Amino acid sequence: MTQNYGGSALDVSLAYYEAWTTATFNDALTHIDASIVCDAPSGRLEGVEAFRGFMEPFTKILTRSELIAAFGDDSTAVLMYDTDTVPVKNAPGAEYHRVRDGTITYIRIIFDRAPFDAARQASQRQ
Amino acid sequence: MTQNYGGSALDVSLAYYEAWTTATFNDALTHIDASIVCDAPSGRLEGVEAFRGFMEPFTKILTRSELIAAFGDDSTAVLMYDTDTVPVKNAPGAEYHRVRDGTITYIRIIFDRAPFDAARQASQRQ
Repeated sequence: MTQNYGGSALDVSLAYYEAWTTATFNDALTHIDASIVCDAPSGRLEGVEAFRGFMEPFTKILTRSELIAAFGDDSTAVLMYDTDTVPVKNAPGAEYHRVRDGTITYIRIIFDRAPFDAARQASQRQ
Repeated sequence: MTQNYGGSALDVSLAYYEAWTTATFNDALTHIDASIVCDAPSGRLEGVEAFRGFMEPFTKILTRSELIAAFGDDSTAVLMYDTDTVPVKNAPGAEYHRVRDGTITYIRIIFDRAPFDAARQASQRQ
C-alpha cells in the first residue's frame, strides 16, 4: 500500500475510508459535507441522503477491504482500494475527493458494476 | 485537474498516459516494461502482447480524455481520468502503476464495464 501523507485532504479521506470500512456509516458521514456531490457509475448523487442510499448498502455487504494507494494534497485526494463483498470478490474501487474545511464535498467513484449485475441476475434466476 | 509532481514514477505514468491518449500505442509501449503485469476488470494480463490486446483497442475508440487527478511518489503513481469513446460517453478510469527503472511494471486498472457491455448488446440487437 502506498500512502503519501502530503496534505490535510488525505487525512480526511483516510478517516472517511477507515470509518466506512470498519465502523458505522453514520461515523463515516461525519467526514461528508451536507452538500456532498458524488459522481458514481449510475450517475450524480446530491446531498447526504442520496449519497447514503448509494454507499451504505455497499458497506453492509463488505467482508474485506484493503488500501492499494492513497495520495493527496491540500484540497484533493485519491484512494484506490480492493474489497471483497458477499456477492462479489475482488471488487476494487477508486475515489477522487475534494475536501473543504475538513469534510469531503465531492466524490468521483469508479468501480466495475458488471460483476454486481451478473451476481444479481444469477440470484434472480435461482 | 490535480497534479502533484512529487516523484519520478508520476513522470513515467503521465508520459504513458499522454502517449496512449494522443499518440500511437507503440509510443505508449515505450513506457511499459516487457514483463508488464496488468490486473484489469476481466482478469490478469501478463506480458506486452496480452496488455496490448487489452488496451490498444480502447485507444482506437477514444474520442476525448481528461485527467481528473494524478499523484505519485518514487515508485508508484495513481491516475484518474475521464474519457469519451465511440460507444460510451463519460467512461472514467483509474490506474495504479508501479514503476521501476523508468518503465511501468504493474498496472491495476479500474473502470465500469457495464456501459460497454450494454452498448455491445444494443449493437448486436440491431
